[in-house]
Amino acid sequence: MTQLQGIAASGGIAIAKAYRLEAPDLSYDKTTVDEPAEEITRLHDALEVSKSELEKIKEHTRKSLGDEHAEIFSAHLLVLSDPEMIQPMEDKIRTESVNAEAALDETANMFIDMFKNMDNEYMKERAADIHDVTKRVLAHLLDAEFPDPALIDEQVVIVAEDLTPSDTAQLNKEFVQGFTTDIGGRTSHSAIMARSLEIPAVVGTKEITKQADKGVTVIVDGLSGDVIVDPTDEQIESYKQKRSEFEEKKQEWAKLKDETTVSSDNEHVELAANIGTPDDVSGVLENGGEGIGLYRTEFLYMGKNQLPTEDEQFDAYSSVLKQMEDKPVVVRTLDIGGDKELDYLDLPDEMNPFLGFRAIRLCLERDDIFRTQLRALLRASVHGNLKIMFPMIATLDEFREAKAILTEEKENLIREGKEVADNIEVGIMVEIPATAVMAKQFAKEVDFFSIGTNDLIQYTMAADRMNERVSYLYQPYNPAILNLVNNVIEAAHAEGKWAGMCGEMAGDEIAIPILLGLGLDEFSMSSSSILPARTQILGLSKAEMSSFKDELLSMNTSEDVVAFVKEKAGLE
Amino acid sequence: MTQLQGIAASGGIAIAKAYRLEAPDLSYDKTTVDEPAEEITRLHDALEVSKSELEKIKEHTRKSLGDEHAEIFSAHLLVLSDPEMIQPMEDKIRTESVNAEAALDETANMFIDMFKNMDNEYMKERAADIHDVTKRVLAHLLDAEFPDPALIDEQVVIVAEDLTPSDTAQLNKEFVQGFTTDIGGRTSHSAIMARSLEIPAVVGTKEITKQADKGVTVIVDGLSGDVIVDPTDEQIESYKQKRSEFEEKKQEWAKLKDETTVSSDNEHVELAANIGTPDDVSGVLENGGEGIGLYRTEFLYMGKNQLPTEDEQFDAYSSVLKQMEDKPVVVRTLDIGGDKELDYLDLPDEMNPFLGFRAIRLCLERDDIFRTQLRALLRASVHGNLKIMFPMIATLDEFREAKAILTEEKENLIREGKEVADNIEVGIMVEIPATAVMAKQFAKEVDFFSIGTNDLIQYTMAADRMNERVSYLYQPYNPAILNLVNNVIEAAHAEGKWAGMCGEMAGDEIAIPILLGLGLDEFSMSSSSILPARTQILGLSKAEMSSFKDELLSMNTSEDVVAFVKEKAGLE
Repeated sequence: MTQLQGIAASGGIAIAKAYRLEAPDLSYDKTTVDEPAEEITRLHDALEVSKSELEKIKEHTRKSLGDEHAEIFSAHLLVLSDPEMIQPMEDKIRTESVNAEAALDETANMFIDMFKNMDNEYMKERAADIHDVTKRVLAHLLDAEFPDPALIDEQVVIVAEDLTPSDTAQLNKEFVQGFTTDIGGRTSHSAIMARSLEIPAVVGTKEITKQADKGVTVIVDGLSGDVIVDPTDEQIESYKQKRSEFEEKKQEWAKLKDETTVSSDNEHVELAANIGTPDDVSGVLENGGEGIGLYRTEFLYMGKNQLPTEDEQFDAYSSVLKQMEDKPVVVRTLDIGGDKELDYLDLPDEMNPFLGFRAIRLCLERDDIFRTQLRALLRASVHGNLKIMFPMIATLDEFREAKAILTEEKENLIREGKEVADNIEVGIMVEIPATAVMAKQFAKEVDFFSIGTNDLIQYTMAADRMNERVSYLYQPYNPAILNLVNNVIEAAHAEGKWAGMCGEMAGDEIAIPILLGLGLDEFSMSSSSILPARTQILGLSKAEMSSFKDELLSMNTSEDVVAFVKEKAGLE
Repeated sequence: MTQLQGIAASGGIAIAKAYRLEAPDLSYDKTTVDEPAEEITRLHDALEVSKSELEKIKEHTRKSLGDEHAEIFSAHLLVLSDPEMIQPMEDKIRTESVNAEAALDETANMFIDMFKNMDNEYMKERAADIHDVTKRVLAHLLDAEFPDPALIDEQVVIVAEDLTPSDTAQLNKEFVQGFTTDIGGRTSHSAIMARSLEIPAVVGTKEITKQADKGVTVIVDGLSGDVIVDPTDEQIESYKQKRSEFEEKKQEWAKLKDETTVSSDNEHVELAANIGTPDDVSGVLENGGEGIGLYRTEFLYMGKNQLPTEDEQFDAYSSVLKQMEDKPVVVRTLDIGGDKELDYLDLPDEMNPFLGFRAIRLCLERDDIFRTQLRALLRASVHGNLKIMFPMIATLDEFREAKAILTEEKENLIREGKEVADNIEVGIMVEIPATAVMAKQFAKEVDFFSIGTNDLIQYTMAADRMNERVSYLYQPYNPAILNLVNNVIEAAHAEGKWAGMCGEMAGDEIAIPILLGLGLDEFSMSSSSILPARTQILGLSKAEMSSFKDELLSMNTSEDVVAFVKEKAGLE
């Protein structure tokens, strides 16, 4: 039995055997074969198995993430069926009497080099596709295990160094009980995805891949951050008990699904959800979300070879708005750059991408991309209650420029005879310290604020939230952060505007009492956090929490704040 | 005639012919020679010329930057005299009948590869030394021009894509009239160095290296940011006139050298200087500095193969303190990391170094390095008026931890019988937004604040100041920055502490009236800015500037602030 402590990234308990998600060893020897015909058969067998796997993954991705994301696998399948690709491999085996591994790998590398050096983004993408599928076929030739999270068909806990967003998207909730990783934090993409998929997860254990061999039983406690490898029978029993209690709690929460969110002194706040795709809306409704506080539109732009068209975007936005009926939907315009890159945009490498050319900075320069998105949003606006939000606004000039472009496109659409809603609120993310400081000035011109704490904290503390060596400075409860949040809320209310929060902090049980006391109007979080948050707020008095405001804002350290809130809000 | 507009980086006018500082083409053909003996002579000639150049550069560096910086050239000279290095080159020529270029390059590369792969920082440095000197010898063999700014012996304007700090340090003021570069901004290292050396400079012209061929006359107007290539006779005359006027102005300023700095309504502020080495002190005194507001100690750690010893540091700190007599000297403890790396520390690469493991973050983890520096400072404290300042403080916990280590080392020294001053003020740089927001809390525990605007602006605006694509967001006059600066000054005064500023903003003619009005106590700047700043302050009423405070702090944009200040402070 080995016990590790990580970061509780997504609530719940998982008990199952370990499935190691790691790159297989694909090294091979180039050999001379006596029977080329047999090698060609081996090659074709490996190709066929690979194709049937890719079909399954494609279908799974289509169901879980939609057609657009499944397209990448269509591209992969095309590679494996392309005679211009397969024929040279067969020829190589026949004329050079080499084994199938060498024929596959050398032919693929020739095409990869050729495509990679073309000055054409589409061709460069082809090189990446060939690279990906070749690894799969080679794994089959070598009888090496090629991990396919989408194809898992028994109950497992995923063990990995880290999970990419696409790994996480492929996880099948029916079989994947939970996951645990070496690296990552509460705000890493995989952690956010885990909460959205409602899969228990513990990240940042530092060494789970060293401790958990394939097949060993692993307990993941996504509530406490504990991970137990090869537990004793007593531990398994005790965690099964804890799991049942958590399930019961969830059933209690579920009863609140159709309730509004009110504090014990009858003050209403709005609990909304953060989503990434139209498919996430069902989870929002099942968890009683009163709106969508952050629709991240980046997924429309990712995992593709080109920018999404206006119509593709219109379909996605309309779908979300229709599903949410008259509930508010805050759509954030494109926030690309920083740690989120798009190969086909060919952005320059930057020394400090988090302080670089991203989000609205990019959209104001590449206003062709921006206008297409705004047109799609404006056209979709008639299908629901749309609010538009600009990310990474640092100056009033930027907001004015973005809003002017929006107004222009609205006028263009009306001139073209298109219908556009007339009551679209236009707001900004407050995620840059300058903007939080200047909230009073901004409040006169925007319709609403949504505080993006993930970035706001990292800039305010000058600490990269992805960098383990300075992660101790990622302090949501630091009084500096609370003062900025308070400044934003006060400024909004002074101008009769509303203030929300769409960072991870909004769903956090220590932050919720503070934010309620500061007067936050809208809390936007992972769907799975909504019902626990509603339960918590039902038991809190807003007036009481407000009475602590001055004391909290003048505290010295994050630790002081946490100790105080735990006591006053009755958290253990 | 071609006119370019860049960024005015250091005041004054330069008119001289262009000296292009660029890497020469060192490609060569490997050939077979008939007379190996002649090749060996060629090799030795090239070695000798290189050695005599290196001797000159070493001597020049010793004079301008001190012994420690000159050491690197001693290492280079050793390489060129090492028989274990030279003998194999001769052997190669003799046995293989190859030309000297090939013998030199191939032998050097063999040693470089060997040393580079050793797991020993000292040997890795040797590889770098060999690499550097080989290029110089190869240039002589090829008769290619190897630029040596230290060896310039006629009046020139340096034209380069960019200048490294070591290039700038080598510039001989007697001959180098000015410089101009393609890239860089007002706060880039080369710009800061230019002001410290009092050489006119215009940076960020984008294309001066494309426009100015070697030898063409170039005018650099470091006051306006204009650069003129191949000027007309009228332009030369007109700029000579402008240069005389500037010289006269400088003489006017010089009369104020021994005056204190008072506003027109007789309020005193302190004008101090930013320095990097003990040799900079003479410039501070010549320019009438009332103290040193920022002694950057990084130079002690740079351009070497190992950490400076306690005694080496003691010597440097004592030298500065003694030269300044009883005037205040604020020493900043080590601020390494970010864009300033030390090879021998082997720090991990980071995705966002500006938001990473640097300065006090590193010092608190590597407290061996930190304690050595603090002991050297404490021992030097008896020689003058020392104040110690910690960089990149983000939380009160960090300050408390740093101060506790300082107190421990003070007690250790006293126990060892060493003398330590008893009145050393201990303060912090305010360069992280959280710290500016929390100034009220910090003011209770620190002795002083020094606002580091270069970093404070980049974090507050979330824009890398070195990244051209977001340089429009580097806004010193943004009302968000002014509000934070005001918060820091007010917090200091409420606790009876003083607040200074040691960023580039402190010497800026638009910022000075604002900062005077906000009540800043100490302005620390490049030595060359002190007398112009004193002149400007003599003509400003502090009470009048203070009366604009509320209006300035509630403004919307940087442009609004600039227009307002220009009018109120009588700037054109």
